[in-house]
Amino acid sequence: MTVRVGVLGAGTVGGALVNRLVADREAIRLKSGVDLEVKRVAVRDLTKDRPFDLKADRMTDMAMSVVTDPGIDVIVEVIGGLDPAGELVLAALRSGKPVVTANKELIATRGQEIMEAARRAGVSVMYEAAVGGGIPVIRPLAESLAGEDIDAVSGIVNGTTNYILTAMAKEGRSYQDALEEAQRLGYAETDPADDVSGRDAAFKTSILASLAFGERVAPWEVECVGIDGVTVDDVAAATARDEVIKLIGSAERGADGRVVARVQPVSLPSEHPLAGVNGVTNAIFIEGPSVGRLLFTGPGAGGQPTASAMLGDLIQVASRGRPPRARSPHDPKRQVLHR
Amino acid sequence: MTVRVGVLGAGTVGGALVNRLVADREAIRLKSGVDLEVKRVAVRDLTKDRPFDLKADRMTDMAMSVVTDPGIDVIVEVIGGLDPAGELVLAALRSGKPVVTANKELIATRGQEIMEAARRAGVSVMYEAAVGGGIPVIRPLAESLAGEDIDAVSGIVNGTTNYILTAMAKEGRSYQDALEEAQRLGYAETDPADDVSGRDAAFKTSILASLAFGERVAPWEVECVGIDGVTVDDVAAATARDEVIKLIGSAERGADGRVVARVQPVSLPSEHPLAGVNGVTNAIFIEGPSVGRLLFTGPGAGGQPTASAMLGDLIQVASRGRPPRARSPHDPKRQVLHR
Repeated sequence: MTVRVGVLGAGTVGGALVNRLVADREAIRLKSGVDLEVKRVAVRDLTKDRPFDLKADRMTDMAMSVVTDPGIDVIVEVIGGLDPAGELVLAALRSGKPVVTANKELIATRGQEIMEAARRAGVSVMYEAAVGGGIPVIRPLAESLAGEDIDAVSGIVNGTTNYILTAMAKEGRSYQDALEEAQRLGYAETDPADDVSGRDAAFKTSILASLAFGERVAPWEVECVGIDGVTVDDVAAATARDEVIKLIGSAERGADGRVVARVQPVSLPSEHPLAGVNGVTNAIFIEGPSVGRLLFTGPGAGGQPTASAMLGDLIQVASRGRPPRARSPHDPKRQVLHR
Repeated sequence: MTVRVGVLGAGTVGGALVNRLVADREAIRLKSGVDLEVKRVAVRDLTKDRPFDLKADRMTDMAMSVVTDPGIDVIVEVIGGLDPAGELVLAALRSGKPVVTANKELIATRGQEIMEAARRAGVSVMYEAAVGGGIPVIRPLAESLAGEDIDAVSGIVNGTTNYILTAMAKEGRSYQDALEEAQRLGYAETDPADDVSGRDAAFKTSILASLAFGERVAPWEVECVGIDGVTVDDVAAATARDEVIKLIGSAERGADGRVVARVQPVSLPSEHPLAGVNGVTNAIFIEGPSVGRLLFTGPGAGGQPTASAMLGDLIQVASRGRPPRARSPHDPKRQVLHR
């Protein structure tokens, strides 16, 4: 069975995902048992060059027409931001289409409304790529640790600021200089406010905390300090103490039962496991009384790793609810995972 | 709805799991939405003290009677080894009961037959706890990375040997001395052959490789060298070179397309990410062209972490195939994950 995919947005992540889906369609089908066809891609500017090979009639600048298209089974949202992504995702769910998204702002801010719409329609919303880029952390937290009474989640969840802090510490650069380099290399946006203010990290911390503690932790409940106030002197003083400054997102349940979540620069001893996590790498701790201390490390940003996480979600969503199919006896995978 | 669980075996892992299920039943129900009732536990010796509080009439020494009991919905297998675990698991599946197991030897050796039986019966077999103890690695590999064309998996997958090697390197102990300490602390069995020969690591490497490459890699295809030949001199020579000896399980696809899997002691430079993984901690790398290099670290053994992984599987299995239920609007979890 072919599953027809509509993609909203074709920027860094969307472009990488559509390219994978088009170029590796047969390989994905062989590996996963799911044939994913990119039916339509909605973009803002139809004249722009794209990093994938798709016929012009599959491109549109009317995103809502993709969402409502009865010939499309699943919607992938990679526009980002609240508007129009929120209305498009809700419209997709209401028309019975499962959604895969990487939109941390949308999930952190309107997650409950979106999950409720999905529940009513009897379809899934998956967002593994919203936190940690290519690192599988949402699924482990929500499924593998479903029975664990999590004590704390914490870590480096923003690649841009970690790149800047690493360049300041390792190369003695100023904040401004390191930021400009990150922008030159494509690790920071032209407007870096969301990253350097800690806002992006706060969305991700809100999502992790909500999943970990089974209760809503809104992004505005995350106390947030960015790295824009970190000076060369701060970094040098930390180095002199054999410490490293990292922007840490964390959430824990206090003795009174309340969840306390924050994003802030923290000076860590150099032997701390997060102190050696450099550049755009992300690393997330999950701690619980039974499971102990788990650490997930990997590329926290970038088109390809993020697209890989979305592809995993897409395969999952596309293969749900279908009867098991015979596969090569040498592939134990599908039989295990999907009934 | 209450899901009635039959548990086969109540050793270190089984005892920890039954204790969690009994002591935390209400907390698990609140967090996961699934009410898990331990209906019967099969043990070899009914007179032995157990670390859980369960009425005597729920204990039996006839494991097959638990498997065939129509009043039981799900079977948890924590006996270990091939026999009788294999026949019990197959009988459970044939009678339509999903199975959660931590049995790496069984999955590595008879996995295909078991998956085929599960497929025919339309039920699931889950085995997150078979590799990496409490570290979620099976689910990420099989689901999150379902679309990734994995290049390699590698890591420290046996806690006992890592404990011994760490004690030899850090405290200058002999192999025999370190082994005896591990046995005293309960990290090594009275008969440590499966661990120190690399056999346990070969089972786990076989499972990881089969999932990663989507083709069967049998345990006897894993080239295997244990740590029983590692001497104090070897360890001292490695330290002198600023290296650390670790028992590494690895699998990669060679240029000719064939998968090469092995378990062997490897001398790693001290700055290698696995060089600092000490004691019973496990750490597993997964590498692919899109996702880059992911590292999963955590407690690789022990009753509680392993029981936590099994509980995650159990909740998953127990909540599948049921309609979504209304939950507190402050808990986004179930709606996301289960349709």
